Amino acid sequence: MHRTKVRVVEDVLDANDTIARANRDDFDRAGVAVVNLMSAPGAGKTRLLERALDGLAASGVRAGVLEGDVQGSYDADRLSLLHVPVVQLNTDGGFGGECHLDANMVRSALPSLPLDELDLLVVENVGNLVCPAEFRIGEDARIMVCSVTEGEDKPLKYPLMFRACELVLINKVDLLEHLEFDVDRLLANLDAVHPGVERMLVSARTGEGVDAFRDWLAQVPVRMARPPTPV
Amino acid sequence: MHRTKVRVVEDVLDANDTIARANRDDFDRAGVAVVNLMSAPGAGKTRLLERALDGLAASGVRAGVLEGDVQGSYDADRLSLLHVPVVQLNTDGGFGGECHLDANMVRSALPSLPLDELDLLVVENVGNLVCPAEFRIGEDARIMVCSVTEGEDKPLKYPLMFRACELVLINKVDLLEHLEFDVDRLLANLDAVHPGVERMLVSARTGEGVDAFRDWLAQVPVRMARPPTPV
Repeated sequence: MHRTKVRVVEDVLDANDTIARANRDDFDRAGVAVVNLMSAPGAGKTRLLERALDGLAASGVRAGVLEGDVQGSYDADRLSLLHVPVVQLNTDGGFGGECHLDANMVRSALPSLPLDELDLLVVENVGNLVCPAEFRIGEDARIMVCSVTEGEDKPLKYPLMFRACELVLINKVDLLEHLEFDVDRLLANLDAVHPGVERMLVSARTGEGVDAFRDWLAQVPVRMARPPTPV
Repeated sequence: MHRTKVRVVEDVLDANDTIARANRDDFDRAGVAVVNLMSAPGAGKTRLLERALDGLAASGVRAGVLEGDVQGSYDADRLSLLHVPVVQLNTDGGFGGECHLDANMVRSALPSLPLDELDLLVVENVGNLVCPAEFRIGEDARIMVCSVTEGEDKPLKYPLMFRACELVLINKVDLLEHLEFDVDRLLANLDAVHPGVERMLVSARTGEGVDAFRDWLAQVPVRMARPPTPV
């Protein structure tokens, strides 16, 4: 009796991961590094980006932004003033709106972005401390912004989000003197869920720490060190 | 030929609404009014509750709390110090955790609550400005907390959340003098998405506005005015 050989396929990716890999391939071909910027609503992602992008071109890094929001283009409008390519992606297609970006949403925006002209694409996710961490979009690195007005307990209450990132920005430190906020306690909680993760104290308002953040962003394309694949 | 009569059933509820109605029936039978407390992470829901519940018993209102969190029981532990019945509901059963409470999760917690001994149940939802607004849990009223550190644009960016509530608490007003925050602009944005919705300026830290919030909570069972249905 003749039997055909049965091939066992393991580790089947879920649909999101399959599309994230397709995005990743496109980013590699274009030679663009991608960061996924995540936080709770109002933690200051957009303002930090405004400060960091302003001056990034001087480092020779050509940056673009993909803005994710349930509705509207308020943040994209702000960032467009910096003369970088900005595309707005709204998630309110169905129901009350999606609370996160996924690989497929990002993929639908790629044709609107001049990937070949970029070194760095920053994807600003929907403000949310749960679901954005569950959906890879094909990014090289994930940045988590938490602000000192949110309380020290957030890493313990939303551990996946604080684990699934390479850099934690602790924003609004200019307000520390007006708050009962214990930075050491926040850092201990952070280390409890993600020991040793890189972190920076920053203030989008005063600019404190923004140079270090800008340098970090400028290094992402270098660290990825992917020579563009010839098409 | 004999035909049976065909009955057309319209307006089929989705599963969540069906379970929310079952919860509502149970709340009615027990004569307990229910509020759903929602906000972004770190807006100050728990601290406001601590301040408001402390003293509510003096108004003759017997309150209990159902705490929703992805993980941990930090907030429930804090509230248990107030000697009110507190039940913690964690949403991290699968994947990275659910970003909201739904009617079924709340229903699973009901046997742990002494409903017959309560006049008011406060359900503190998971911190998130998108999905909690999409899932009714059988509540009488919804309260939305936004803090002045989150920026004036939030009603425009998360309109469903600001529409799906009967009261908006604008928290952390003690920080206003340290922020570039325009309260009038926030209120205009709020009125743009939910004209005339009741709103209160509060500070969980200083206690400003907390008496008014406590009075509002005390009135929920009165306004519902549902005499307990004899079982």
